[in-house]
Amino acid sequence: MEPIRIGVLGLGTVGSGTVSVLHRNAGEIARRAGRGIDVVRAAARHPDRERSCDLTGIEVTGDARAVVDDPDIEVVVELIGGTDAARELVLRAIRQGKHVVTANKALIALHGNEVFSAARAAGVIIAFEAAVAGAIPVIKSVREGLAGNRIRSLAGIINGTCNYILTAMQSVGKPFDEVLAEAQALGYAEADPTFDVEGIDAAHKLTILASIAFGHPLQFERVHVEGLGVVEPADISYADQLGYRIKHLGVARHSERGIEMRVHPTMVPKQHLLASVDGVMNAVLIEGDAAGPIVCHGAGAGAEPTASSVVADLVDVVRTLTTDPDQRVPHLAFQPDRIANLPLLAMEEVETAYYLRMLAEDRPGVLAELASIFGELDISIEAVVQREPPRGVRQVHLIMLTHQVRESRMDTAVARIEASSCVEGSVTRIRVEHFGAE
Amino acid sequence: MEPIRIGVLGLGTVGSGTVSVLHRNAGEIARRAGRGIDVVRAAARHPDRERSCDLTGIEVTGDARAVVDDPDIEVVVELIGGTDAARELVLRAIRQGKHVVTANKALIALHGNEVFSAARAAGVIIAFEAAVAGAIPVIKSVREGLAGNRIRSLAGIINGTCNYILTAMQSVGKPFDEVLAEAQALGYAEADPTFDVEGIDAAHKLTILASIAFGHPLQFERVHVEGLGVVEPADISYADQLGYRIKHLGVARHSERGIEMRVHPTMVPKQHLLASVDGVMNAVLIEGDAAGPIVCHGAGAGAEPTASSVVADLVDVVRTLTTDPDQRVPHLAFQPDRIANLPLLAMEEVETAYYLRMLAEDRPGVLAELASIFGELDISIEAVVQREPPRGVRQVHLIMLTHQVRESRMDTAVARIEASSCVEGSVTRIRVEHFGAE
Repeated sequence: MEPIRIGVLGLGTVGSGTVSVLHRNAGEIARRAGRGIDVVRAAARHPDRERSCDLTGIEVTGDARAVVDDPDIEVVVELIGGTDAARELVLRAIRQGKHVVTANKALIALHGNEVFSAARAAGVIIAFEAAVAGAIPVIKSVREGLAGNRIRSLAGIINGTCNYILTAMQSVGKPFDEVLAEAQALGYAEADPTFDVEGIDAAHKLTILASIAFGHPLQFERVHVEGLGVVEPADISYADQLGYRIKHLGVARHSERGIEMRVHPTMVPKQHLLASVDGVMNAVLIEGDAAGPIVCHGAGAGAEPTASSVVADLVDVVRTLTTDPDQRVPHLAFQPDRIANLPLLAMEEVETAYYLRMLAEDRPGVLAELASIFGELDISIEAVVQREPPRGVRQVHLIMLTHQVRESRMDTAVARIEASSCVEGSVTRIRVEHFGAE
Repeated sequence: MEPIRIGVLGLGTVGSGTVSVLHRNAGEIARRAGRGIDVVRAAARHPDRERSCDLTGIEVTGDARAVVDDPDIEVVVELIGGTDAARELVLRAIRQGKHVVTANKALIALHGNEVFSAARAAGVIIAFEAAVAGAIPVIKSVREGLAGNRIRSLAGIINGTCNYILTAMQSVGKPFDEVLAEAQALGYAEADPTFDVEGIDAAHKLTILASIAFGHPLQFERVHVEGLGVVEPADISYADQLGYRIKHLGVARHSERGIEMRVHPTMVPKQHLLASVDGVMNAVLIEGDAAGPIVCHGAGAGAEPTASSVVADLVDVVRTLTTDPDQRVPHLAFQPDRIANLPLLAMEEVETAYYLRMLAEDRPGVLAELASIFGELDISIEAVVQREPPRGVRQVHLIMLTHQVRESRMDTAVARIEASSCVEGSVTRIRVEHFGAE
């Protein structure tokens, strides 16, 4: 099947990231979607500027309307931001029967009711996963994954700038103004940070999440919004003494009395998952009456994390348009004829770090003998812990942490250790993993 | 539109939970799906047994085939578990052109390739979100939400029994056998715990996740599986000293060398989100090349959490069957004509706990005066912290934590405090929230 042809409006951070991801993962994406996704035209305010993405085969223009109007283009990806031009372009695309993917939270929060009703009238798809919490598929999780629940509440760290500032205030004890200036210098806060630190950006996102959770119209103007400014280093320190962390949260709750929507600094118990979300990461807690609490954590902004959600929406559009109902989402994510017999590593080929526990003779030379076994096999040791034995006991617990080593080599090392006279019995092995997002 | 008619096979924990959730949330579910979901027949081995769910209007039979064969039934929900009878019933439903929702990880991991190919031939949907990680919409997140990514790795705490045992070993320092016996007494482990503690259940789930992430056929027999038995209390204590927690993980990784699939006890750095997943909770970390690391956390088992995913799949089936492509998933999750103008609470009506910071006179009677203001307004105090002032300074920082109080009442309290002579300047207010899942 021919690739679907799309036009991208905006080649800033997210626009360039989207072009890069579509290009780099084209094979994987086509295996999942059932057909390729080709960016044929893009619009940018400065069409001749150098970009971080490869624009080969993409016609770049300064005229966004020309991209929207291009009869070759089936899906318009709006990544301009703001509400005036974006609203006009999105409505224009809809009127021409084109599907739209957008990352624009302000557009959806402020004009979503109008945009959705135009889309329904035209019979087109509007997808906006990237508008909330960057790479986290939170809209899909709430709208589809928790569709059986009466959702009780949502609470989200949904503005990375605020969370970066609070995390930095926490770790260095500096006041808000100083940390904000540093964040601006590092690119984690905009030159005009008002939208972020005053809570407006978070309120846009909360507006969207609350409507999806509870089923009421988008009502940004009803969100109670407080910024970060009130928080002083003293508060962070008192909160710590009392067992809390201060986070800037968007909270929406559905009680018998009505719906709450509010954005403000909030003290959260230290042991709660939300309290350990640091830096520019985002997290959303959703409480359903059947599911209980679900927390989704991930990158809330940035070129490729946001592009991840834009492309997921594009794949959703393609799957909806081009497959039979029973095939809309393939069972195993990839189209049946594109399931591949990828090489599977035998366990002996896998590399992990290792924790080893053994009962060793408590005499000189034992550690040297063990070290020489590891040395010969080129296994590098990260740490050794030896527990002094009680009086009269000859063996000690010897604990070793290794760096990454291939399983087969560790098998050899352990066999040699168990055969040696300096260790009694067998060696207990537990693998050590360091994942991302630590 | 008429409700869709479904038949439920199995009225055990998950079956009863599914009937309860469909009944309790019928209104909410119909608003999202566009039509109701009616359980018309159910099959159970002991059809006359008392159940925790309301079976009014549901014909319960001992003959599962009769439910599958009932021409009135459009969707079969398989919640029997096991592989023999379940496989036969699911294939029978497919051959009759019926859509199937299942929570059966063993069935999908061992017979999924056969089941999916039968479903494709018959043009029916097979949905299995509930097969992995209970209430967490992890299959949807990987299959759809991260569809733009080359997925690098997955790591999951996907067996609640193992995690409960490890958490208990960690907190009380008892050996595996003792903790297992206690878990069995409490109902957190089965009488025959082999599937859980030997890692087989986790391997079933990892098989499914890995295929969805990487696009290879289901290959349960290629998963390297190690149980929990190797871990002794000493290892948990040494791990703690070295900065780690021991978790029983399913790990799948896609490197240039090939795909790894393995289930084993693993040491994870303490500061990693996976390390703080305690008790019967589940969590899955997914690393995409664009999205970066995403962690989803929630209840991994239990009647209603699993039912949450079963019902989400049912809503997906209904949305796929009954709506135009552009309307498959409504923009705001609920069908456009069912978006309701729910009452929105004004901020003054919202109730939260409060942290208050004020500069108070350092003289006798101040605390009594403040306490009487709170007492008159029926605001209850949880904690008071007062910092001794440096020599020569007359005011002190006074910190108060309140219990839940309505905003309007706190406004009054703060106005009175600020007007009183015992406090200088304004009172800093930060709300305190206690969410679920702490």
